[in-house]
Amino acid sequence: METELLRDYGFRRQQLTEMLGHACAAAIAKVFPLASLQKRQPTVLVACGPDQNGCVGLACARHLRVFEYIPTVFIPKRSSDALHQDLTLQCERMDLPFLSYLPTEVQLINDAYNLVVDAVLGPETDLASVGEPFTGVLQTLRGLKVPIVSLDVPSGWDADESSSDRISPALLVSLMTPKRCTLSFSGSHFLAGRFLPFDLQRKYELNLPKFPGTDDVVQL
Amino acid sequence: METELLRDYGFRRQQLTEMLGHACAAAIAKVFPLASLQKRQPTVLVACGPDQNGCVGLACARHLRVFEYIPTVFIPKRSSDALHQDLTLQCERMDLPFLSYLPTEVQLINDAYNLVVDAVLGPETDLASVGEPFTGVLQTLRGLKVPIVSLDVPSGWDADESSSDRISPALLVSLMTPKRCTLSFSGSHFLAGRFLPFDLQRKYELNLPKFPGTDDVVQL
Repeated sequence: METELLRDYGFRRQQLTEMLGHACAAAIAKVFPLASLQKRQPTVLVACGPDQNGCVGLACARHLRVFEYIPTVFIPKRSSDALHQDLTLQCERMDLPFLSYLPTEVQLINDAYNLVVDAVLGPETDLASVGEPFTGVLQTLRGLKVPIVSLDVPSGWDADESSSDRISPALLVSLMTPKRCTLSFSGSHFLAGRFLPFDLQRKYELNLPKFPGTDDVVQL
Repeated sequence: METELLRDYGFRRQQLTEMLGHACAAAIAKVFPLASLQKRQPTVLVACGPDQNGCVGLACARHLRVFEYIPTVFIPKRSSDALHQDLTLQCERMDLPFLSYLPTEVQLINDAYNLVVDAVLGPETDLASVGEPFTGVLQTLRGLKVPIVSLDVPSGWDADESSSDRISPALLVSLMTPKRCTLSFSGSHFLAGRFLPFDLQRKYELNLPKFPGTDDVVQL
């Protein structure tokens, strides 16, 4: 579907990523409004992988800052993608702090952040070939006590995997369409992608629910 | 300011245009909600010039469609700008109708549309050199009875001009910062540009008002 948007509809990745990142930040603001956060500062850790999922995470982090959260960005592996680099620069120039490594001691993360956003691995990731540093990041995420927000798919989830040894997001924001591996997800579930052309929605039989007002996310 | 965003902050025009177009559509939905429209169909005519103002108009038209308005696009003069062409293609592929010319008989427009969005000329336009087809378009806009929504500046307004012979928008959406020529504007006035980095807001002493919730526009 993304291929069609880019090839046939004249969309650019910058546009799609910006809209999706904004929608993810709006979903977070709905489920975890500033006033509900437990810590003195509205801190959020946003972990961004090197691919498209990480790009959406970077745009989400920037919009969270605009919504007056205090996001910190962690990029486990730098990307050669020009869009990823632009989005990273935007976060840097917005004065967002960056972690150079993720503490393995999960208590440090539980103490410092209200939430962790998981934009590490996307649905296009070949899980069989995932190695370090991602394996270590996933292990840390699995050990967290603070709520996790996953973008599009919870990192490392496989449709056929048993549910015992995987991360458990409190909130999942599906991008454009829920992916198969999220069928068993039972937390808060929002959908982003209101901008999809209607004929594409019909072609892929998306049957998107009605988005309220001018919101760019809807709860599933 | 836009130059700095593009040069120093890693933003791309696609991103800025998308965010601004979305914000303009959201402002229109606030001031002219679907339920308030007089005509049987929620029709809106969106007139888009060949420059950046017209690009924002095209993105706005697409988001209006997503918000369930029925926009028709009028482009008085095709643009050689690749972004303008992409945004036009997006509208075409979203099945938005295009007018090939603007009726000079204003009653036809008053009868067919609830609103007209004026994204014809931007603040960068040298008004002294504006000729056809824009002169004719402005003359038609001046004669309209249906409300006009101007993006950034009302087309053809000059800071020093007397107010007698210019278009009178019911709603003005300033983009990032109100321009000098709009100081005398007395209709509904919204500001878009929540995404601006805080240090740039300080540098240009913008003193932006507080945006409510996750809204991307605020009333001035």
